[in-house]
Amino acid sequence: MTQRVAIIGAGPSGLAQLRAFQSARAKGAAVPELVCFERQSEWGGQWNYTWRTGLDEFGEPVHSSMYRYLWSNGPKEALEFADYSFEEHFGRPIPSYPPRAVLHDYIMGRVARSDVRQHIRFNTPVRWVEKREDGRFDVRSHNLKTDEQVDEIFDYVVVASGHFSTPNVPEFEGVAEFTGRVMHAHDFRSADEFAGKHVLMVGGSYSAEDIGTQCFKYGAASVTFSYRSRPLGYGWPEGFEERPLLVRLVGNTAYFVDGTSRQIDAVVLCTGYQHSFPFLPDSLRLKTNNRLWPLNLYKGVFWIEDPRLIYLGMQDQYYTFNMFDAQAWYARDYILGRIALPSVEEQTAETLDWRAREEKLENPYQEIDFQTDYVRDLIGPTDYPEFDLDAVADLFKEWKHDKVDSILGYRDKSYRSVLTGNMAPVHHTPWMQAMDDSLEAFLAVDQAA
Amino acid sequence: MTQRVAIIGAGPSGLAQLRAFQSARAKGAAVPELVCFERQSEWGGQWNYTWRTGLDEFGEPVHSSMYRYLWSNGPKEALEFADYSFEEHFGRPIPSYPPRAVLHDYIMGRVARSDVRQHIRFNTPVRWVEKREDGRFDVRSHNLKTDEQVDEIFDYVVVASGHFSTPNVPEFEGVAEFTGRVMHAHDFRSADEFAGKHVLMVGGSYSAEDIGTQCFKYGAASVTFSYRSRPLGYGWPEGFEERPLLVRLVGNTAYFVDGTSRQIDAVVLCTGYQHSFPFLPDSLRLKTNNRLWPLNLYKGVFWIEDPRLIYLGMQDQYYTFNMFDAQAWYARDYILGRIALPSVEEQTAETLDWRAREEKLENPYQEIDFQTDYVRDLIGPTDYPEFDLDAVADLFKEWKHDKVDSILGYRDKSYRSVLTGNMAPVHHTPWMQAMDDSLEAFLAVDQAA
Repeated sequence: MTQRVAIIGAGPSGLAQLRAFQSARAKGAAVPELVCFERQSEWGGQWNYTWRTGLDEFGEPVHSSMYRYLWSNGPKEALEFADYSFEEHFGRPIPSYPPRAVLHDYIMGRVARSDVRQHIRFNTPVRWVEKREDGRFDVRSHNLKTDEQVDEIFDYVVVASGHFSTPNVPEFEGVAEFTGRVMHAHDFRSADEFAGKHVLMVGGSYSAEDIGTQCFKYGAASVTFSYRSRPLGYGWPEGFEERPLLVRLVGNTAYFVDGTSRQIDAVVLCTGYQHSFPFLPDSLRLKTNNRLWPLNLYKGVFWIEDPRLIYLGMQDQYYTFNMFDAQAWYARDYILGRIALPSVEEQTAETLDWRAREEKLENPYQEIDFQTDYVRDLIGPTDYPEFDLDAVADLFKEWKHDKVDSILGYRDKSYRSVLTGNMAPVHHTPWMQAMDDSLEAFLAVDQAA
Repeated sequence: MTQRVAIIGAGPSGLAQLRAFQSARAKGAAVPELVCFERQSEWGGQWNYTWRTGLDEFGEPVHSSMYRYLWSNGPKEALEFADYSFEEHFGRPIPSYPPRAVLHDYIMGRVARSDVRQHIRFNTPVRWVEKREDGRFDVRSHNLKTDEQVDEIFDYVVVASGHFSTPNVPEFEGVAEFTGRVMHAHDFRSADEFAGKHVLMVGGSYSAEDIGTQCFKYGAASVTFSYRSRPLGYGWPEGFEERPLLVRLVGNTAYFVDGTSRQIDAVVLCTGYQHSFPFLPDSLRLKTNNRLWPLNLYKGVFWIEDPRLIYLGMQDQYYTFNMFDAQAWYARDYILGRIALPSVEEQTAETLDWRAREEKLENPYQEIDFQTDYVRDLIGPTDYPEFDLDAVADLFKEWKHDKVDSILGYRDKSYRSVLTGNMAPVHHTPWMQAMDDSLEAFLAVDQAA
């Protein structure tokens, strides 16, 4: 009997899983029946920009946290698919920091050239997964367009639903009385709205940094970052400032833990995301914070208690698309019987070793090396194309330095593709002057040069 | 064996169900074990104002659609519990149009004086309900605080989860490119944000009318209503206008189906709500639009295919709290074996009679009479206190007239309680000048008089 694999989500991780099987099939392998359940009406996951916030047209939580004018905050050379270069997709080298639409075009380009779309059921969230007594899984999905549920049995379940969709939204004293806009970064859509405003970003990580600089670029009067543990610490120009933790709001005044205060017009809570799997029972559900090595996942992928349940992309991420690929190829080879897993004891021991190493990491450079080693470990036994991982690790480290050198200027840098060996061209417009984030404007590099 | 009743939701309907059983117990009846599952951390349903929008601190959809400065848009005398008057709660007559905090205090006052709170599990959404082969129900709930699921068996399930929480959010051409704020009424929290702005309300019902007048009251530069079928039609003062359906947004210009256009700064989609029960399988799930007589519910309450499944408050509503009471008392008496239901054929026939009558209704006055008859039909066989329903129907009709007379002034009117016979005092401040919506400010009537 043909085996059946349920893939939950058609974002970068779910698409990587489809692509991994397609690649095997193209080489003659017999592959299982694949059903990819996607809540949205299109593939792309996070990369589908939507104007919607909160709940979508079907009353489902909006998946994407992306916003207008979002540009990659890392060099594209560090996330390039090893089997599909940017140069292959665009027909020529392009600059290193593309806006969302360009990355979306690239990610979808690889799968659009294959036949994997037929496996995706759009507008179909998974409502519930349950382990059967025969070891397989009952999966209940909901077709939002027909408003009907379907129950099916699968041999494997691949959870590729992401972990940057369910906001973590803490309470702050006085926030209920604050009369300006308060929102989580998940609901941030357009910096235009904050032109002329004094904006407070609560949080000290990527969302705060990126939304803050966006607001500044599009005319905010000032941007204040409030951090819990440590300041972002970049050389911020006039118009930015960093304060420690927000402790309360009184009217339109924000008070910080150091006793200072300032007037603000709007608050963006850049307070992170939760791993949320409301469709999974406790016995199958990953519970973790956002970190480089979540527990209970062998190779960062297989639910140790039951490896027919597979999680993709649940780590905190330096590596993204190529790491999802590495995970998907490895998971595929397990499903195809090409890779055998060791005993539960060995799986657990190996996992704890990674965790012990993760806990000793002291800085981003060590973290990059850690995740590089992880990706290398996954790729080894598979036929995913080898690529120069040390060179990618160096790219990440260079990027870290470039951000420190200039938080508003690092996106003007260029890097060399480890796949093609070609240096990215400089973009026609410095990022701070590039107000149009469309694919057309970005790719108009030749005319401008 | 003690029977078990699951009540889903601790808003006005769920609390009415708890109160109905408590009332029977107080009179000596043996009542089933009650478990009320409430997603929020407090009781009150919609009446719990929250600054949050989208997803809450646990990643669950925010339930309440209420906003700062929300005042009742109907006279309190029309929604008074027959067993607990406003006068009993506040110790004296109070004006007819209280703000949210005052109504919240009243609704909770009745249950706070009883012992029903012990039956409520807060922060505990129901994830799934399934019919068992033995006729009972499997109910899976999720304790958000411990992040653990619990499976239990119940003999009856009362769905009291409301239908004003899941927004209906249509797409409009150009909305993705509009750079001002776009949101559904569900996410509207504060009119302050729109001071000085030109605001477009899409929709022609209560939300549009109320949020539009709120924005005007708190300083919006202009309020435009866009209607699909018919204008609200009130005698709007300078600063308001009505336009037919919005067809597209181009930049910050809204174009309407009559070819007119205007510049706007923000869009509030007052486009209604969906009946949404993601925790119910197709076989148990009510599918209806918002109307006075949904099908498949005998007495507007019992799921005809299986009356041990009960829905409260799923109708479009003139009557609210007292109708939920009437439903809850009737449902209670069925569960207690005091009321027997007729055959499925008779249930269906009666239900279709109501529907046929509903379809002939031509205006609000007829609709009020229809729902008055429905409430009367429910109360008859129960011990819910009789009250003068014709007088309440007259109140609703008077209210309709008063709104036509003055859409910004109708909240300054007073009405007579059908329970106490007392006329409500005039509020100390005309609504348009009453900027403070706190309970303290509203109840300060004596000092001001």
